[in-house]
Amino acid sequence: MSAICCFGEIMLRLSPPAGERLVRARGFDAVYGGAEANVAAALAGFGCPAAVVTKLPAGELGSACVSVLGSLGVDCSRIVRGGERMGLYFLEKGASLRPSKVIYDRRNSAFACSMREDWDWEAILGGASGFFFTGITPAVSDPAILEDALAVCRREGIPVSCDLNYRPTLWSPEKAGPVMRSLVDGVDLLVANEEHAALLLGVTAEGEGADRHESLCRTLAERYRANRVAMTFRESLSADDNIVSACLFDCGTFVSSKPYRVTGIVDRVGGGDAFTAGLLWGFRCGWDPQRTVDFAVAANALKHSIPGDMLIATAEEVERLASSDGTVRMIR
Amino acid sequence: MSAICCFGEIMLRLSPPAGERLVRARGFDAVYGGAEANVAAALAGFGCPAAVVTKLPAGELGSACVSVLGSLGVDCSRIVRGGERMGLYFLEKGASLRPSKVIYDRRNSAFACSMREDWDWEAILGGASGFFFTGITPAVSDPAILEDALAVCRREGIPVSCDLNYRPTLWSPEKAGPVMRSLVDGVDLLVANEEHAALLLGVTAEGEGADRHESLCRTLAERYRANRVAMTFRESLSADDNIVSACLFDCGTFVSSKPYRVTGIVDRVGGGDAFTAGLLWGFRCGWDPQRTVDFAVAANALKHSIPGDMLIATAEEVERLASSDGTVRMIR
Amino acid sequence: MSAICCFGEIMLRLSPPAGERLVRARGFDAVYGGAEANVAAALAGFGCPAAVVTKLPAGELGSACVSVLGSLGVDCSRIVRGGERMGLYFLEKGASLRPSKVIYDRRNSAFACSMREDWDWEAILGGASGFFFTGITPAVSDPAILEDALAVCRREGIPVSCDLNYRPTLWSPEKAGPVMRSLVDGVDLLVANEEHAALLLGVTAEGEGADRHESLCRTLAERYRANRVAMTFRESLSADDNIVSACLFDCGTFVSSKPYRVTGIVDRVGGGDAFTAGLLWGFRCGWDPQRTVDFAVAANALKHSIPGDMLIATAEEVERLASSDGTVRMIR
Amino acid sequence: MSAICCFGEIMLRLSPPAGERLVRARGFDAVYGGAEANVAAALAGFGCPAAVVTKLPAGELGSACVSVLGSLGVDCSRIVRGGERMGLYFLEKGASLRPSKVIYDRRNSAFACSMREDWDWEAILGGASGFFFTGITPAVSDPAILEDALAVCRREGIPVSCDLNYRPTLWSPEKAGPVMRSLVDGVDLLVANEEHAALLLGVTAEGEGADRHESLCRTLAERYRANRVAMTFRESLSADDNIVSACLFDCGTFVSSKPYRVTGIVDRVGGGDAFTAGLLWGFRCGWDPQRTVDFAVAANALKHSIPGDMLIATAEEVERLASSDGTVRMIR
Amino acid sequence: MSAICCFGEIMLRLSPPAGERLVRARGFDAVYGGAEANVAAALAGFGCPAAVVTKLPAGELGSACVSVLGSLGVDCSRIVRGGERMGLYFLEKGASLRPSKVIYDRRNSAFACSMREDWDWEAILGGASGFFFTGITPAVSDPAILEDALAVCRREGIPVSCDLNYRPTLWSPEKAGPVMRSLVDGVDLLVANEEHAALLLGVTAEGEGADRHESLCRTLAERYRANRVAMTFRESLSADDNIVSACLFDCGTFVSSKPYRVTGIVDRVGGGDAFTAGLLWGFRCGWDPQRTVDFAVAANALKHSIPGDMLIATAEEVERLASSDGTVRMIR
Amino acid sequence: MSAICCFGEIMLRLSPPAGERLVRARGFDAVYGGAEANVAAALAGFGCPAAVVTKLPAGELGSACVSVLGSLGVDCSRIVRGGERMGLYFLEKGASLRPSKVIYDRRNSAFACSMREDWDWEAILGGASGFFFTGITPAVSDPAILEDALAVCRREGIPVSCDLNYRPTLWSPEKAGPVMRSLVDGVDLLVANEEHAALLLGVTAEGEGADRHESLCRTLAERYRANRVAMTFRESLSADDNIVSACLFDCGTFVSSKPYRVTGIVDRVGGGDAFTAGLLWGFRCGWDPQRTVDFAVAANALKHSIPGDMLIATAEEVERLASSDGTVRMIR
Repeated sequence: MSAICCFGEIMLRLSPPAGERLVRARGFDAVYGGAEANVAAALAGFGCPAAVVTKLPAGELGSACVSVLGSLGVDCSRIVRGGERMGLYFLEKGASLRPSKVIYDRRNSAFACSMREDWDWEAILGGASGFFFTGITPAVSDPAILEDALAVCRREGIPVSCDLNYRPTLWSPEKAGPVMRSLVDGVDLLVANEEHAALLLGVTAEGEGADRHESLCRTLAERYRANRVAMTFRESLSADDNIVSACLFDCGTFVSSKPYRVTGIVDRVGGGDAFTAGLLWGFRCGWDPQRTVDFAVAANALKHSIPGDMLIATAEEVERLASSDGTVRMIR
Repeated sequence: MSAICCFGEIMLRLSPPAGERLVRARGFDAVYGGAEANVAAALAGFGCPAAVVTKLPAGELGSACVSVLGSLGVDCSRIVRGGERMGLYFLEKGASLRPSKVIYDRRNSAFACSMREDWDWEAILGGASGFFFTGITPAVSDPAILEDALAVCRREGIPVSCDLNYRPTLWSPEKAGPVMRSLVDGVDLLVANEEHAALLLGVTAEGEGADRHESLCRTLAERYRANRVAMTFRESLSADDNIVSACLFDCGTFVSSKPYRVTGIVDRVGGGDAFTAGLLWGFRCGWDPQRTVDFAVAANALKHSIPGDMLIATAEEVERLASSDGTVRMIR
Repeated sequence: MSAICCFGEIMLRLSPPAGERLVRARGFDAVYGGAEANVAAALAGFGCPAAVVTKLPAGELGSACVSVLGSLGVDCSRIVRGGERMGLYFLEKGASLRPSKVIYDRRNSAFACSMREDWDWEAILGGASGFFFTGITPAVSDPAILEDALAVCRREGIPVSCDLNYRPTLWSPEKAGPVMRSLVDGVDLLVANEEHAALLLGVTAEGEGADRHESLCRTLAERYRANRVAMTFRESLSADDNIVSACLFDCGTFVSSKPYRVTGIVDRVGGGDAFTAGLLWGFRCGWDPQRTVDFAVAANALKHSIPGDMLIATAEEVERLASSDGTVRMIR
Repeated sequence: MSAICCFGEIMLRLSPPAGERLVRARGFDAVYGGAEANVAAALAGFGCPAAVVTKLPAGELGSACVSVLGSLGVDCSRIVRGGERMGLYFLEKGASLRPSKVIYDRRNSAFACSMREDWDWEAILGGASGFFFTGITPAVSDPAILEDALAVCRREGIPVSCDLNYRPTLWSPEKAGPVMRSLVDGVDLLVANEEHAALLLGVTAEGEGADRHESLCRTLAERYRANRVAMTFRESLSADDNIVSACLFDCGTFVSSKPYRVTGIVDRVGGGDAFTAGLLWGFRCGWDPQRTVDFAVAANALKHSIPGDMLIATAEEVERLASSDGTVRMIR
Repeated sequence: MSAICCFGEIMLRLSPPAGERLVRARGFDAVYGGAEANVAAALAGFGCPAAVVTKLPAGELGSACVSVLGSLGVDCSRIVRGGERMGLYFLEKGASLRPSKVIYDRRNSAFACSMREDWDWEAILGGASGFFFTGITPAVSDPAILEDALAVCRREGIPVSCDLNYRPTLWSPEKAGPVMRSLVDGVDLLVANEEHAALLLGVTAEGEGADRHESLCRTLAERYRANRVAMTFRESLSADDNIVSACLFDCGTFVSSKPYRVTGIVDRVGGGDAFTAGLLWGFRCGWDPQRTVDFAVAANALKHSIPGDMLIATAEEVERLASSDGTVRMIR
Repeated sequence: MSAICCFGEIMLRLSPPAGERLVRARGFDAVYGGAEANVAAALAGFGCPAAVVTKLPAGELGSACVSVLGSLGVDCSRIVRGGERMGLYFLEKGASLRPSKVIYDRRNSAFACSMREDWDWEAILGGASGFFFTGITPAVSDPAILEDALAVCRREGIPVSCDLNYRPTLWSPEKAGPVMRSLVDGVDLLVANEEHAALLLGVTAEGEGADRHESLCRTLAERYRANRVAMTFRESLSADDNIVSACLFDCGTFVSSKPYRVTGIVDRVGGGDAFTAGLLWGFRCGWDPQRTVDFAVAANALKHSIPGDMLIATAEEVERLASSDGTVRMIR
């Protein structure tokens, strides 16, 4: 079956177990994460063929990452092997009034140092049913690689999705703006938040509430010739008590999701990626925009209950939450 | 001292540690549980002699279960050994908006396959001061075994308690109804909830609130010649935020407990069993109905803070909660 | 690429961690194992496409097993889902003078209860480059299923390999003998040991030492029209100190491996399966018999250093051991 | 650099991991704690030179404690070694409606049995920039030792701080009152709560709210010739949901902190000690009273998120919380 | 059934997990041990009713110990509760060339501080079928307590067994000698080694090898009017490689066991106690001296494979080792 | 007290726990190691003031490393903070016939990228009583930094020690030779092995056995004007069974140590560093060459029993081994 290809860096994530501080850590829990891989993993969990396209070192650390992706049912056949090191990041999980803290160590990774000639896009995208990337990919690697991929997508009619995902520690708005404006032009789906849409894409909102969101989505869709534009919202009542919601502008129709109050958060990393995967699954299933955005925001909410960067859940589980009355009963 | 004999299946419970999903589990925490054994364990913790009457395989797995019961002070001398396998169940603990999930693997267990001749009720119930079973027992084993036991109880004047505990995955209402109506007739204590009382015992409630509950209890007591009828209530505000309360109709007197708001739930399995044990302890101590139901619902609430299926607590600890002003101070 | 299809039951293995006794266990390490799956996993580690053909329950436990196989690079696309339960076994690891102990709980598993109509062999074996089974498969499931598979193999020219693997707790020699004699007839590779060859296949050895082994292999090859016959030998100096070796009769040529003294054994389960995988890899690579048997016995020896039932190693690692001078230096 | 010397007992704390009950414990997490050592550790984390002055046994257990203090950057050069045993305490962490429970086993510890001649205060306090003790120190050891220390402080002009910290299980108010009244006279900083101030120091409050607190502080300062008096307040909404606040009377100026709602509490032991350390740090930095008390109460609040008795945090982390708008965002 | 009563102190044993050094420990594995309790636990494992007679504190720590003994099937009904603290000891497990190290913290334990009036020997020994103590008991507690017990044993005809078990860190030979000479007089079984027999009992050996051992046993039996005398021997080839053997002089007959080479030792604490339990079991079963000593030394050898102080094994497991040919095969 | 300053890189070491393979790891044990830091830690354990001189990143990862060194009593006051990342390495521990494997990820570390101006050698070496480095330091950092340090040592009369420690993966013999020849000239102590002495220093041995070793040491001492030259020898019987020994040429006197057979190896990394620390301790204590080399090789042997890169032991423990008769008895 044709797979959605997700292109970006995947990192080894190391976090001290059981609420320990980094300065006291005598061990680390290890998972893997990266926005694009997170989307692929969630899609695979839903039953949608999904491939991670990345570059990993040839040795055991790269193989360990492939093994984890394989355990999630992600297609790893398009992963390039080689280069010097695995990108990694340290995560100290917060608690109560103490925030989580991330320390990146991703410089000079196999992916970041990859060159255009590493990527045979004709072969990689053979039979792909979609292509997904985020703004992190051109921030850490040569944007020309992504341009090469998008050229093939255009040629082959592969729909492209992009999560703007601006990370100010990786590049400045001055550098990111022109690059992203070029890359998102003509995508099928653009995911963005208001702040970054203004900063990078020069699109500012009018009005208040849903009107403001619709206006923003509509402008983005028009300006960047996107079929769909989606936005997620998060209200942080506290470190383990958030409210998440979203909206979707889908070929002219604007819909908002209901909000989810998420308490007792287990791991909030990757919520947005689960949302994007939920959208892509809804599009693939041919659902109407309301069902799609409800599913996607339920995927986001459910991600908060799952350790690691990736949503590990079936589509049925997400749908149960999307259609629940708010009670969470034991399933026997 | 004469013991309360609790008759039913006990299973090995396997749950992935630390919030991990079943599909990712590389290990399991192991405890033992079963409604009747849970009641016995809680009773033993209170200081009440209590015996588990069950059948366990002859090998190490059966011995491991006996060892755990022995560590809790439960009388294991009436356990029959033999048969082919240990019943077991897998529990994936929920978190936040993700519900807990149970997968049973109890078919063909030593208990389920036991035969009437395995049980020498005269010997087993020698000197028993009470007999307890739930609706799970006749659902998984030959109801004739239970009838044999009840006949001896009647003959010896041993008071019988029953928790209706209807499990739709084990048998249909059509099958369960006649069996349970026969078995609960003449018990000293009947524990039920409104839905199952209607479904299996054909008793429906009138009125609202406490009146409704009293009416239901009174009708059940009359119809099934029970001295006492009790009901528990649970309001699931979220997976780890519940409100529990209860009522008790005791020889003509109807009392309601105060409600407990239980947040930060550790393990909600077995709350109802702790409640039943609390009732039996109150009866044994000769307390008035109000004190009894308050103790019992405090036992239920306290269970939510303890890992595993069983309440591991002293009567003093339950009483401290039952008589507290709602603050939870460190005890030095 | 065409895969070697390995057909048999895979079980969840539960073992108390860190040398704890089963009767004291409060948790279990979980891996998966089964002779045929072990061969597939080792082959996948070598880089050889390998598929597990089995039946697993539809729920989370079956998915967890698929996930582990996927993490090892095993092709899971031919796994049938359905049936009631996962077969499982408990392993108490021995130490010093205390032997390891296995308790099986595999009755009524999805695989054991599968029926001929569950298996669409034409589809399953489409493009297979080999078929492997052991004597455990017909012992726990309907032998007619295996006969159906072998008929397709014959028709399609798919070479078949069989490890005799007689388990007296599963069936008697009287029952196993005729079944196995029929099934092994015409295989490409037959793996057996002397005791079971005599008991089930009626072939007894003459002479001493290598002559005896060669005679036995030759007779087996002739009598059962096998291209290749292999045998492994194990000398148990103590629970964690063994000597392993092997011999191979390959299309008329008889070769013996050098022996490996294996001390500090981590997990000896699955050593024989690693050996078989090593042979199949050698055949696929077109190596001469000596290189093949040396690689295979090195795979066996190396398996003893790896936790779980499966050899998790690259072909390069096995070759390093096969060609080493006996020292085990740190690789930097 | 000159260090603040914190004089008191430090104990090995043993607590069952992961919410397990003491009666079921098969293992213990081990940390070290004691009010004075907790203050020293928090000070060291802020970057303030701090020494623990205590007596520890000569063997491995004493060395293990020194090692932990050393890992936190605490000056251990003034620790006396010798005596018979390490004081220790068992902590069962509470959850939900189950309170935490502490069992002390500190009798006959090296510290408790130390004698006046063990302590060469001239040498110990050489170059000290401050001296801190709590009411626990004279409760468990000979108060004459403390008097010797205070005499040197007076002679050398070393400012003294004292947390009243009355523990009714260690001594009676009748015994503690005269001792503490003598010891706190003339301190630079006195930390107390209303109940203990009345019980031991004979000072009762007038008025309500902040007025009452100011009045109490002022009276204490006058009566006991203290430059500064501070008080902390805790409202226990539940076991893992508290509100903490504080006030400080500093050389005539009275200030109150904002309150912190602390949910999802990880470990509340040592919150008061973190507060005291925060005050001492503020004094050292020369901050105004408001900034000082805000920092100190933020240190208290932050401690609730950190496992163990000690605040392990930088001054920057505390300041971030003290100046935050109440949201707890991930730091990348 | 009548139980063998084992009288002595039981301690909480704390050891750093996984080979960690004490100075680096952040946690401890917790088991319970004491020579007499070890004998009782081993007996219970064999199927022999056995009671621990000791004094434990009234709180959770005492209850935790009772819980562990209950899990092993030991009769805890004769345990006195009260006193101040639990005795404990720290064990750093050795490895390779690093020896194990024990640090005791047993002073002032509930047992050590118990008084004669705590022990109602008539009640405690009611229906006892045997009484066992070691030289540690009078070393840590008032020997008059033991004399009281022995007087009841004599009166009731309860056979007494004693393991000399001299610990030089607890008392001097000058103090221990007269006490032990009085206590062992007239026992049914005396277990001793050559060095301590000379030091405390004034009996020295003649000859070499078995003759020497027989001479020593015979003299001890005569001098102290013992029916049986046994000795164990250990040759420490290295920390994890020992040879154990034993001899028994039983009512005139002298027998020696075969030696066991024990490699890969897991935990050697309690080997001698397992041996004594083996003897008592053999006597109870009415076996001849050779079978008895062979079983007992196999119990000793098997203990080395089991974590903790206590032999956790069935009589069948010990017999399998006693009758094995030296190979240690997996049991399926 | 004046400290021995050890100059080099220290890395975070990540190894899968409990014998797991890297490709399967879901977590890592974390320790810190580096040849020079290992020497400093061992010295601190012996009671010798020792400082690590290195550069670590400013954030939590650098602080975590400082914390571990502080827990070992190492002087961290001369550590420079700054730079981009922590060097790290992954270690898969071998077992049985499977060798350990190291994967370095140390490029671009704070230390490797440090510049000459980062190091104020006058200040760093103020009051130093010794300076130690290995050949790894100039391999990973600018050799000019080391030359600067050595110039100060010469000026201040600080004795210098060097372990040749050639790592072929870091630099070629062609590059390393001239650098090392210049750096070792005039050291007080040179540690080398025969192979690297030939390869880098151009010194080859004559004769056999001890004569050959003495000849080699003498030539090295003469050629490079070293007071002392030492060599260690390792015979790898298997992965967990080695024989270690050493020799020392000390100001004209040549001595050889006795050999240690080390079985059941826990962690062999850092054995050579423990040896070097042992030599430096012997020199400091003023011992004769024989006692010094015996202590040093015992330190090496003992290191094999301790997890991590560093010897964590007291001088007394090493001396007990150095003077033992080969038995390893429990210390009570």
